[in-house]
Amino acid sequence: MFDPATLKFDAAGLVPAIAQDHSSGEVLMLAWMNAEAVAKTLDTGRVTYWSRSRQAFWVKGETSGHLQHLVEMRVDCDRDCLLVLVRQEGPACHTGRRSCFYTSVRDGDEVEIMAPE
Amino acid sequence: MFDPATLKFDAAGLVPAIAQDHSSGEVLMLAWMNAEAVAKTLDTGRVTYWSRSRQAFWVKGETSGHLQHLVEMRVDCDRDCLLVLVRQEGPACHTGRRSCFYTSVRDGDEVEIMAPE
Repeated sequence: MFDPATLKFDAAGLVPAIAQDHSSGEVLMLAWMNAEAVAKTLDTGRVTYWSRSRQAFWVKGETSGHLQHLVEMRVDCDRDCLLVLVRQEGPACHTGRRSCFYTSVRDGDEVEIMAPE
Repeated sequence: MFDPATLKFDAAGLVPAIAQDHSSGEVLMLAWMNAEAVAKTLDTGRVTYWSRSRQAFWVKGETSGHLQHLVEMRVDCDRDCLLVLVRQEGPACHTGRRSCFYTSVRDGDEVEIMAPE
């Protein structure tokens, strides 16, 4: 039986959660979850983070429509990080790009490798 | 010109760094870097973290031989998280498994989905 309370949360009660596209393998974003966000994500199948800036639950895509549907949740060996495999509707990034990791460091310079959709 | 000092570090001076296998797309682990670890990673091509438990630089694989060779570093939209695409020698996880994310939550239970290599 998986109990979110058994995860190792940081001083703020959070763990980082990496969202990965379940079919392409693309890493989409990293955000944070507290124990209740983990439980909500598992219960609803909609990936739910804890917004550190707003100090509130953040159902990804609730306002934008760019929902993340949970395919599978994984826990790492130290139990202090999660990997969520998702089916992403629309872009994951608030800039309109598929992934938040659209800036690459190449030969010492920053290069944008992905355009808004 | 990319300057590691322009990243948004947390109160401890760290950003989370996700290591992903550059060819398979598998997410291998998450660890932490400070500005100097970012610079060392770029300079040496060997992924170098900051060990929070040891409070020291951690050249991944330096003792185990399971090095991570940097293929590409990416910065996220908020500049507070890194994605490092790597060529991983041997297993990434200290348990001998390819990835640290070998535990899946399925139907409310924890299931081990990957054996040590």
